[in-house]
Parts: sequence; C-alpha cells; structure tokens
Amino acid sequence: MSAGTIAAISTPAGKGGIAVIRVSGAEAIAVVEKIFTAKPAKQLTAVPAYRLLFGEVHDNGEKIDEAVIGIFRAPHSFTGENTVEISCHGSVYIQQRILQLLLSKGARMAAAGEFTQRAFLNGKMDLAQAEAVADLIAAESAAAHRVALQQLRGGFSETLRQLRSRLLDFAALIELELDFAEEEVEFADRAQLTALLQALQNETGRLLQSFALGNAIKNGVPVAIVGQTNVGKSTLLNTLLSEERAIVSDIHGTTRDSIEETIQLAGITFRFIDTAGLRATSECIEQLGIERTLGKIRQAAIVLLLVDATRPETFTSIEDIHAQLTDTQQLIVAVNKIDSAACHAPCTATPVVYISAKNKQGVVQLTEMLLDCFHRTPPAADETVITNLRHYEALQRAQEALQRIEKGFAGQLSGDLVAQDLREALYHLGSITGEITTDEILGNIFSKFCIGK
Amino acid sequence: MSAGTIAAISTPAGKGGIAVIRVSGAEAIAVVEKIFTAKPAKQLTAVPAYRLLFGEVHDNGEKIDEAVIGIFRAPHSFTGENTVEISCHGSVYIQQRILQLLLSKGARMAAAGEFTQRAFLNGKMDLAQAEAVADLIAAESAAAHRVALQQLRGGFSETLRQLRSRLLDFAALIELELDFAEEEVEFADRAQLTALLQALQNETGRLLQSFALGNAIKNGVPVAIVGQTNVGKSTLLNTLLSEERAIVSDIHGTTRDSIEETIQLAGITFRFIDTAGLRATSECIEQLGIERTLGKIRQAAIVLLLVDATRPETFTSIEDIHAQLTDTQQLIVAVNKIDSAACHAPCTATPVVYISAKNKQGVVQLTEMLLDCFHRTPPAADETVITNLRHYEALQRAQEALQRIEKGFAGQLSGDLVAQDLREALYHLGSITGEITTDEILGNIFSKFCIGK
Repeated sequence: MSAGTIAAISTPAGKGGIAVIRVSGAEAIAVVEKIFTAKPAKQLTAVPAYRLLFGEVHDNGEKIDEAVIGIFRAPHSFTGENTVEISCHGSVYIQQRILQLLLSKGARMAAAGEFTQRAFLNGKMDLAQAEAVADLIAAESAAAHRVALQQLRGGFSETLRQLRSRLLDFAALIELELDFAEEEVEFADRAQLTALLQALQNETGRLLQSFALGNAIKNGVPVAIVGQTNVGKSTLLNTLLSEERAIVSDIHGTTRDSIEETIQLAGITFRFIDTAGLRATSECIEQLGIERTLGKIRQAAIVLLLVDATRPETFTSIEDIHAQLTDTQQLIVAVNKIDSAACHAPCTATPVVYISAKNKQGVVQLTEMLLDCFHRTPPAADETVITNLRHYEALQRAQEALQRIEKGFAGQLSGDLVAQDLREALYHLGSITGEITTDEILGNIFSKFCIGK
Repeated sequence: MSAGTIAAISTPAGKGGIAVIRVSGAEAIAVVEKIFTAKPAKQLTAVPAYRLLFGEVHDNGEKIDEAVIGIFRAPHSFTGENTVEISCHGSVYIQQRILQLLLSKGARMAAAGEFTQRAFLNGKMDLAQAEAVADLIAAESAAAHRVALQQLRGGFSETLRQLRSRLLDFAALIELELDFAEEEVEFADRAQLTALLQALQNETGRLLQSFALGNAIKNGVPVAIVGQTNVGKSTLLNTLLSEERAIVSDIHGTTRDSIEETIQLAGITFRFIDTAGLRATSECIEQLGIERTLGKIRQAAIVLLLVDATRPETFTSIEDIHAQLTDTQQLIVAVNKIDSAACHAPCTATPVVYISAKNKQGVVQLTEMLLDCFHRTPPAADETVITNLRHYEALQRAQEALQRIEKGFAGQLSGDLVAQDLREALYHLGSITGEITTDEILGNIFSKFCIGK
C-alpha cells in the first residue's frame, strides 16, 4: 500500500469555483511534469519547494485546463513525500479528466486516508494525531473542533509515550531477570516500578474517565426530554429547534417514537431525545414507548423533566425520575405552561426553571442551565479528553494489564506471568500512538477516512 | 461592487480533505496576516509572489487550523489583484470559521462571480472570456468543455474586436461628415466601408449559424425518438440509457408524457426525447400527447424514427415524418424488433439501421449514425462556435443594424439615420466582449456564477 505515487481529488465532491487534485510520492513532480506546462516554461523538477506555478494541463497536445500548481518537496510536505497540488477549474469533468490523466502517467488512485497514512508512516505524526485529522474534518461544533485540534497537536500522545517508554525500560529489566531466574536477582527496582505503574494507571484512568465527555463533545451531549403525557415535550423540542419536526397535538400520547435532534448552544452540540410520555397505561404500543423512554433516560447525560404548571399532579413524576438516575446524570426540572397557569404551584425541585414552551418564555434560562450542566461534567472541558472508541478500548485493556501487573507483584507472581502482562500493557499503550501497529489496525483506521485526505 | 477586499470559499460546498478560501483585493495579504502566522514566522507582506507558506490560522490566540496559504501579487493573479488562497482542512466548521474570521478582519463576502468580474474589470480577460469561466465549470461533456475552453482562450473575441475597431474609425468619419453636412464632403471611403460591412456580416452570420451547434454542444444534441405506438421507443431509450426510466408495457400508447434523458457518446451529449406514439386517435389525452410530439420534432436536430419489422404497415410513417422536417433536421430510420421478424421487410429509407432494442442488437451502429449526424452539422466542430444566448442575441441585433446601414447607403439615406445604426451596431458588438458594458449587463452575467469564482 505504501509504494508508488498516489493521486486523488482532495476537495469536496461536486462542482465549484476551483478544485484541488493532490499527487504524492517520489515521482509526484515527474508525473505532473508530463501533463503540465508552466507559463513561462520551467522544468518542474528544478523548481524549488513551496512555489506556485501557473500553466496549462494538457493531454497529448490537447489543452485540458489552465491551472495553478503548488510544489512541496520531501520531507517538508503533509505526507513527508514530494507532493504537487493542482488547483484546476472546479467542473466535475475537468477534475475527473485530470485525475485520469495522472493515473495514465504513472500515478495510482489513492486509497481512503492514504495521504494521512503516509504522513504517519513517514513519521510526520503519530497514529492518534493521524486519527485526529479525520475527526477535525468531521467536526461540526466548536467543542468537537477544539478536541480534534488538541489531539492533532499531540494531545495525550506525548505523556503516554513517555510513560510507556519508562515501562519499556522496566520490561527489559524484568525480561533480563527471567534470563537469570535461577540466581534470584532483581534488576528492576520494585519501588520505582510500582510508582510508575501508579502513574500510568492515573493517566489511563483519567483518560478513560474523559471519554464520556469526549464522546458527548464529538457526538453531542445526550439530553432526554421526559415527562407525563401532554406536558409539552414536543412543543419544547420544537421551540428549541425553532422548527416543526415533531408531531404536536392535544391528544395525550401522540409521540410514540423517540426523535433525536441536535442543536448547537455556545459551540456545544446537544442531542435532544424526545420521548413518549410516562404514565400508567395498559395500551400495548404506549407501553413499548415507555420502556424505550426508560432506556433513553439511561443513555442520557442530562435528563430534562417537564411538568405542567396547570396540573400540579404532574409534579409527582419528579420523584419517579430521580429514582432512575445514576450519580453521573444530571436533572433539570422545567415547569411548563406558565402562560396558562393563573397562579402556578411552586416547585421545590432544584435546579428548576419556569417556562412557556409555546410562547418561548424562559427558554434562554433553560439553555443556560443546559450549558451549566455540561460544564459541570468532569473533567473540565479544557483538559485533554479522548473521543475515540479505539483509544478508549486500548486504554481499558492497558489498564486491565497494569492492574494484573500490580496484583502480580503484590501476590509474588512468577516473573513469566508478569512479563506477559507487561508486554500486553506495552502493546495496547503503543497501539494508541502507533508505536505498535499492524496492517489490520491501519486498515481499520484509514479506511474510514475520505479519499483525498 | 468593485471596491474592497473580498473573500469566499472557492471549492465545492461540503466536507472534504481540504478546502480553499480565496481572498482578493488590495488588502488581501494584510487581512490574512491578521489571522495567519507562518511557521517559521514570516511577515506575509514581505513574502514574494507565488509562494506557499505553512502555518496556523488563529482567532485571538485560539488556534483554528493548520493551513497552507498561497500568495499571488497584483497584477499576476486570476483577479489581477493581490490574492491569498488559504488551503485548510475541509470540515464545514473550519471553512465557515475561517471565512467569518476574514470578514471580521476587514474582508467582505464576495458576490457570485465577483472574482471573475474583477478579472474582467482589471483587464485580465474580456467579457466573453469571463463568461467562458462559468461555462467551463458547468461543462459536463468533452465537447462542451472544449468549446468553453476555446472561448476562454479568446475564441471569436479577437476577430470581432478588430472588425469593430475598424467600424469605429468609419463611424467617427461619418459623424465628421454630419458636422460638415452642408458641404457634402465624404471623409469615409464608401467602397471600403461597404467591404467592411460585408466582412462584419460574414462574421456575425457565421457565428449566428454556429449557435445551433454551440447550443447542442452545451445543452445536448436534441434527438426526438418518434414512431407509431408500440414500435419499441421506450425500450430503445432504456437500452440507450441502460436504465429502466420509462414505463415499458405492451399496451399501445403507454408513454404519454415526453421524457428527456441525456447520454454521452464519444464526448458529445445527446438529449433524447421520448415521445407519445403517432397514430390516428380520438382519445383526448393521447391527442394532446401527439401534438406535443410534433412540437418536440420541431425542436429536434435529429429525428430518430422507429418502425416495426414485424408490422410493415408502420413503415408508412416514414413519409409522414419526412413531411414535418426542415432542411437543417436530419432523419435516421431504425427498423426495430428484427429478433421477432422471421423475415423482415426491407426498408428503402436512408440512412436506415436494423436493430433489436430488446436484445441490444444494432445499437452500436445506431450510436455511430447519431455521431455521424452530429459531425455533419455545419459548421465543422473544430471551428469557433458560440454557445451563449446573450452573444447570439447581441450578434442578431448587430447584424440587423449592419443590414440597415447597408440599405441606408444603397438607398442614399441621410447620414443622421446611418450614424444611428452605426452606433447601434458598435454597441451590440462591443457588448459581447465587454468593450461596452452597463452595470445591468454585468449584474445579469455574474449573478449566474457560483460564489467563490
């Protein structure tokens, strides 16, 4: 996969003012020279790096387009290889024609993520950074963009790499002890090793804990909107979305399927889950809807419970919901329909907000409370967080191995078994930054990229 | 409109590996300097033209992206102004964020086509060439791409400009004659003027004639598929398209609405028009369908008449169709269902092709005949053709004025009236290349461009 000169359209698919076709590899400049003539004429292979040249793309004398090319020379390019970026007119025809032309002159079509994969293989970035490139391109909110950029900049990679490197030294000593097993020598300082294991577990533990936040940032903070039927859940969702997506009616139990919508508040994506109303019912479909509601509550980071100011009996649901929540989940109670209640009953729950979803009263206060809840989620939003399920799983396995190593020393396990766990911890930690990789890991990661990156 | 520094996303809309944001105007480099720091640090305003710089885009200390910028200096850029192209990661968030940032630092959002409009206003290209930029981006076939590129290269502009310039000299002399009207002098050589008028009319006539071809190239060659009901018109269309778009059934008169589909043959777009079957009928909806069919025949450059090998009585429609055609329309007769006809009747029409639309027999020969018909259309495909309705209309008006001038001289009209017609001819010829423009003309042209070009 890593051989040859590759080419792909790197800009978004479709028609635009201009498009960029990227060519990378040892022969990139030579391949482009076959289809491009600079004006005034220049030999491309003699042009210094970081230059822009105007000229014509041609196919056997037929002019295809006027274009500007940018020349990067190894190792000072994104991929670390010679790279040429061709900015052509953005018709689909021209983009395809130039790409075909490059392929006919010795380049081959780049696989998904292959430019970034080459950047990784050429040591321009570690694996976690390479993965951050895809996250950066996919980021749709300010917060998701920020964590992707932090990871691209190195993020937790450096800390992990240093700790792993120290663990590697110890592992070598432990392996050495095994070679001299009969002499019962201890090359590895047990106190230092224990301290290192603790430091590593602290770091992996902190990163593992950050995943809930990281995932919320990347995929949106899950907020379940719950409440008894007809308290105005769909109306509130519509008000928040300023759109009429959910079915709103006066009949109890209208919303049976849960609907997910995302909105951006101060750069954070909130993923709202509208749920079927909670009430005792014998109706079968509604019963299913309610079981699904309880499932949705379990997935939510924030539960937004709506009660009806005109029907104080709906306040009783506050206790029911409280009973369902775990320690990490946060509850906001919103007393709705304050426009209709001549004198609404006070609600003793905290935090509480009084709103009229219909008249958009109190909605600003509600969104501020949602943001407060988000910022209360540990760790603080400016710390390093992990957002990648692959990293989460590798950290989890590394942590399990670290715990076994610690137990091994405590229980005076044989060096053989400890050494095995050490190798496992090293493997999983190394797989995050790519110090250890397999073709399978790389294939899984880069196949999810877009072509041209 | 022409003032200030403008910015826009120039690559296709959406998410991709990279995106390019273009900034153009006197302050382009200074504006970008406010949001971009090169690595290693460099003062952008001191960087020579045609350089690529790697660095960071930031907003008040917050890093937004790692990017590469390309610097062009006036007048050596597409617009003729200072221009910076920012290649950033292609997330929609980053594209929008950087654009907003540029707008907050003194750039303003570019209007549709404003970069190309500036290229025109700064004398980098004439108006017909500027229009060719939009055609080039929209071109979807090899032929449409070729004519757009020819026009971008200058096309007919230079010839028109030279002839118009000579006409302008004569117009000045005629105006001078008017000033000395009482002395009856002739400053303008009438024989030379007549020769020039003839040369101009030859050129406008040739270009006007090329519009049918130009339009066919740009929008597809219109081919009407006609024939009596149930001869297999829809099946043939489906075979040509290799798709099942039209309704195919054994019931006579199934296809009532005409369907348009385009296919590419050897780089030429053919626009196929499937029509309702021609037969005597009292059924009202079908009658409407047939009238529409006759309308479609009038619009077609090529009429593809299908007859049924198993029903020689359908051959009679050949004469009927012949009667409908004009001199410039071409007819191909296809004898269909040769798979079912044990011994099909010979057809004396030419050109004729024997096919089985169902079994895809003879389809290659048919497509070759279509291409032959296209290449037989005058003028030859390698000559300059006009494709733009605005040019066609301006040429038509110029030609009318030229004819009036000629008649004026022949009939010894007063100089006043001739001078008026001369001014009109000069105006319309000048409006094509943009020597004469109004804000309205420019507005009409560039508002049809995409943003960012």
